[in-house]
Amino acid sequence: MEFKHLCLVRFKEGVVVEDIIEELTKLAAELDTVKFFGWGKDVLNQEALTQGFTHVFSMSFASAEDLAAYMGHEKHSAFAATFMAVLDKVVVLDFPFVVAKPAPSPEAA
Amino acid sequence: MEFKHLCLVRFKEGVVVEDIIEELTKLAAELDTVKFFGWGKDVLNQEALTQGFTHVFSMSFASAEDLAAYMGHEKHSAFAATFMAVLDKVVVLDFPFVVAKPAPSPEAA
Repeated sequence: MEFKHLCLVRFKEGVVVEDIIEELTKLAAELDTVKFFGWGKDVLNQEALTQGFTHVFSMSFASAEDLAAYMGHEKHSAFAATFMAVLDKVVVLDFPFVVAKPAPSPEAA
Repeated sequence: MEFKHLCLVRFKEGVVVEDIIEELTKLAAELDTVKFFGWGKDVLNQEALTQGFTHVFSMSFASAEDLAAYMGHEKHSAFAATFMAVLDKVVVLDFPFVVAKPAPSPEAA
């Protein structure tokens, strides 16, 4: 079962978010333990629902061990120090991901 | 580009979470606008990171219009009323999902 590392964040004012995302994309590309990386920016802007969070970052790993290896990697540690410094608020969840309704296969689409 | 509807929640004490997940899985299965549904429960339990959130629910749609159709569907409204009543806290983000590092294709894996 796939293992996910999910971050919801709000950046501090003045932060160049594009630069942070570029750095994170580079990190994900460099580390083989990262099987998948995607991100999104909320577009509905309903404060009552978002609680002020604006961005989501989602990484997938083949196993909890691969996630642990990623978390312990010196490149991750270096990035995390920079990342945490630009955040106003953050929530991180780590979980095995249960697929309850699979996406249609490309053939079926 | 795929459109995602992501909820992070903490349930009230005494809630039978399995029943809620079963209901949500049924809802996702019934509505064709829901292209994908998956969920997870945090396993690292680091309160400083999770901020007390325990579960993630993630749905994908082919477009923002499909998400809007889902949100406006009477079956969703009925479920949402029940769902909100069992939550202690919730964050919802809606966003086009940018794939920055695609998962390896089955052939490549």
